[in-house]
Amino acid sequence: MAEVESLETLLEKSASALDEREASEMKRILYGAPTPKIELPREAVEKAGAGNFELAAYKFPVSGEEESRPRRIVRIAVVQNEIVKPTTAPISEQKTALWDRIKEITHTASLCGVNIICYQEAWPQPFFFCTREKYPWTEFAESAEDGPTIKLCQEMAARYNMVIVSSILERDANHGGVLFNTAVIISNSGKVLGKTHKNHIPRVGDFNESTYYMEGNTGHKVFQTAYGRIAVNICYGRHHPLNWLGYGINGAEIVFNPSATVGALSEPMWPIEARNAAIANSYFVACNNRVGTETFPNEFTSADGKPAHKDFGHFYGSSYVAGPNGGRTPGLNRVRDGILICEIDLNLIQQIRDKWCFQMTQRTEIYAKLLADAVKPDFKPDIVYETTD
Amino acid sequence: MAEVESLETLLEKSASALDEREASEMKRILYGAPTPKIELPREAVEKAGAGNFELAAYKFPVSGEEESRPRRIVRIAVVQNEIVKPTTAPISEQKTALWDRIKEITHTASLCGVNIICYQEAWPQPFFFCTREKYPWTEFAESAEDGPTIKLCQEMAARYNMVIVSSILERDANHGGVLFNTAVIISNSGKVLGKTHKNHIPRVGDFNESTYYMEGNTGHKVFQTAYGRIAVNICYGRHHPLNWLGYGINGAEIVFNPSATVGALSEPMWPIEARNAAIANSYFVACNNRVGTETFPNEFTSADGKPAHKDFGHFYGSSYVAGPNGGRTPGLNRVRDGILICEIDLNLIQQIRDKWCFQMTQRTEIYAKLLADAVKPDFKPDIVYETTD
Repeated sequence: MAEVESLETLLEKSASALDEREASEMKRILYGAPTPKIELPREAVEKAGAGNFELAAYKFPVSGEEESRPRRIVRIAVVQNEIVKPTTAPISEQKTALWDRIKEITHTASLCGVNIICYQEAWPQPFFFCTREKYPWTEFAESAEDGPTIKLCQEMAARYNMVIVSSILERDANHGGVLFNTAVIISNSGKVLGKTHKNHIPRVGDFNESTYYMEGNTGHKVFQTAYGRIAVNICYGRHHPLNWLGYGINGAEIVFNPSATVGALSEPMWPIEARNAAIANSYFVACNNRVGTETFPNEFTSADGKPAHKDFGHFYGSSYVAGPNGGRTPGLNRVRDGILICEIDLNLIQQIRDKWCFQMTQRTEIYAKLLADAVKPDFKPDIVYETTD
Repeated sequence: MAEVESLETLLEKSASALDEREASEMKRILYGAPTPKIELPREAVEKAGAGNFELAAYKFPVSGEEESRPRRIVRIAVVQNEIVKPTTAPISEQKTALWDRIKEITHTASLCGVNIICYQEAWPQPFFFCTREKYPWTEFAESAEDGPTIKLCQEMAARYNMVIVSSILERDANHGGVLFNTAVIISNSGKVLGKTHKNHIPRVGDFNESTYYMEGNTGHKVFQTAYGRIAVNICYGRHHPLNWLGYGINGAEIVFNPSATVGALSEPMWPIEARNAAIANSYFVACNNRVGTETFPNEFTSADGKPAHKDFGHFYGSSYVAGPNGGRTPGLNRVRDGILICEIDLNLIQQIRDKWCFQMTQRTEIYAKLLADAVKPDFKPDIVYETTD
């Protein structure tokens, strides 16, 4: 059965049964303050048409005007894309085809004035972790400092004056050659600004990535770029509010969440978790997900009692941006490649923090103590029982 | 302009423009696994009709069958209701009228086999904190151990064999007579099991409750009842993921979130935050909100540059239950009183925890350290800057 195009297509179609006020109330409750579409250069729109990828662009409300600080307007983008070649093609062909696709997409983004772009999780490869096979898949791994994918990103970053967040499978030669799931942050100057690991590794269904790499050891680094302070919470880390909080504590203004997740497992959670993080931490979150179905040569099981099979379901795309004001953009589609561009005003962050005071009222001290207690071997939960007196 | 009845009314009306599969996909993405309606006794339905309150009941999917443990099926309920008398009526009249309304509602819930019921935040009073006036409002305060509201709840709890969560403005005679925003947990035996304070106090717009009471000092207690381990996260605490986590760490299976919040401020966040907490902590959350507009005798300002006025907008109800599986029930309506009943299987919690492993992969140690560092006066966020070499 064909996949549904997107939640937004359904909502738009169904809104025809509502009067204008009803449709606007539905939208307000589901999406918060409006994020109007923004116009894009004709050349970019044409390229998206020719290249068969969605190109959508929205803007968040600008912040209130401040006397002592100019607005800080930034255009961010997230990308979702299918793999290009079958997983049976030679590794180099698979990777080159993905590079070419991302070059095309990034060029189009540059025409739209994008300042920061984030590709999907482990973008230069199929998401082969479901197979648990190491060979030939680990051949996709490369250095996060000077591997060929990073070099390509450096060239694009310098050419387009764009910060690039590139999520790859890292082979860390300086630490015994182990693998990590790593996002590399490349400055708009073309320099590698640094890297950050996936902090929480899933063991759920086909997402048994713990056979490939361990939990990250880079903490919750935040990267000061020319366009604001950014951080990267990779995929499964979005289920962990503490992980989101970590980036907030270190001063992130925008947190990217490059992901790879399938419909049956997580789709109803997808609109909730990243958006909740944006609200709770009063920053912007931009999350993107793979799209399409990836089929592998050998069969594997999914730890769900079902027979072995060769794919693990449909990556549902639906990339979106959520803001500190509780609002969010519509999502990209569920079935094909796309770029979501979002214009944001970073000053909105401090203004929302001054309004809602979530940071001021956070009582971090009591939680520092609670967590320190909770990890002790003799920790006893604080449970009240009915007494018999 | 009349308020919209509910998001669900709009979605239902709009679904008429979709084919069956589209409508079901829209529902799946927005609400997760189906929560079918359950049939209620005719007497209860008639009482709701006569009493003019909504009566809605759903059930979450039962958990997988286990050989060594029977299912633990529980019916929980949350209530939303308008104040009955105008705020200018004598205090005792206002309170008695609310008692009568809650007696009627609780009796109806008992006919539906409800095991645990939670009333809305500070239910025996109007939400007068917006006025910042102390007199006469603080006359609503009473003891959380043996005040008249608690005695009423004890009688009902014993009569109906029901656990009652009763949120009140507490006058704490044992600690200098200060006020607290407190939830009292009453066992189905009729005994007061204990109390728990509101941990995070808002200072946002009209919700300047910090002039009445301080942050709670009861931590994150969990109460072992005959129907499962419950906790109460009062209102603004739902914006704080750490607060939700605290109840999870102490073993809560159901967390109630009695609230009082208005549309312009928080409505698009309402479906996100409590549901995210249910997902992240793999427990059930039941959240309820006041409904209607409360008008006060003297005008007050809202710290938003606008002229003084006598009400602070519309409490939008929309109470709902969210589960560890990412699903949620539809919400109650936005405009009138209601009881939302939900049948849940507590075994689903451990089964989802064993599937998703959020607790196992939480890495609490690194966050204990991060928070301990973050509260130090000389804490420096971990920010990476581009070097000039």
